[in-house]
Amino acid sequence: MTTISNTLFEDITIGDSREFSKTLSAEDVKLFAKTSGDLNPLHLDSDYARTTDFGECIGHGMWSGALISAAIAMTLPGPGSVYRSQSLKFNKPVKIGDTLTVTLTVSDKRDRVKLVTLDCVVNNQHGDKVAQGVAEVIAPSQKIDNLAIKPVDLAETR
Amino acid sequence: MTTISNTLFEDITIGDSREFSKTLSAEDVKLFAKTSGDLNPLHLDSDYARTTDFGECIGHGMWSGALISAAIAMTLPGPGSVYRSQSLKFNKPVKIGDTLTVTLTVSDKRDRVKLVTLDCVVNNQHGDKVAQGVAEVIAPSQKIDNLAIKPVDLAETR
Repeated sequence: MTTISNTLFEDITIGDSREFSKTLSAEDVKLFAKTSGDLNPLHLDSDYARTTDFGECIGHGMWSGALISAAIAMTLPGPGSVYRSQSLKFNKPVKIGDTLTVTLTVSDKRDRVKLVTLDCVVNNQHGDKVAQGVAEVIAPSQKIDNLAIKPVDLAETR
Repeated sequence: MTTISNTLFEDITIGDSREFSKTLSAEDVKLFAKTSGDLNPLHLDSDYARTTDFGECIGHGMWSGALISAAIAMTLPGPGSVYRSQSLKFNKPVKIGDTLTVTLTVSDKRDRVKLVTLDCVVNNQHGDKVAQGVAEVIAPSQKIDNLAIKPVDLAETR
């Protein structure tokens, strides 16, 4: 994906659905730790993680929330959306190497405030539901088509 | 902080409170973009952001959620907690350079499942409430004292 587009409130229909997938790498876990400040060694130190009930390093629970927020910004309604609320239930741990797929499905629309409600389900590559929730988003008021995006170059930050 | 400790269910009292602060750097925004996959240029490209209603690059909304999750893992109940659920309302944009403070306050305890409910408020350096929500966490079953943590070295990931 090198461009993203959005969907205006009037063009969104209850039942509309989009998927967004990402594989959790060891680097992703480090980046989440550094940006959030959650340095719990359960996520970062495999020697320590081996001594816990999990037996290995696992991702941060809220990484699934980050993935849902990315799905909303990148696919439906897409850029120009205003994120109002999100509920999340965390069901299962996410391991390094797991591929998560967020499925967003429009469950409600409120015309007066142009608010769209999205059911959010996050499954891993085995079909296990690792997280789920409901998002409320104000749909974009201006059409954006083929907005260029580029990968993040972390070398530029140092 | 070079070590973290946790609080067991029986040692947690309704009304207990902890704070956790972090300043959003431009690098943090890039790290969140890369780990989540949310490459919306509103967060990354100041030329583009200038054309939007925000007028400048803003942080990802879910970064506030990531900060709440870090506060829980690092302070109360701390390491060994199991994150069950989180609700979030996003009230105001967060700008690069803003310092957010998460305040966690225990509002309920359920003995049977060792579940602790935490009110979560996120304020910026001006005292504006940028986000708020409620977390449910299973408190740790084993005491962890002075668990060593170390900063993330991103150079190791390349």
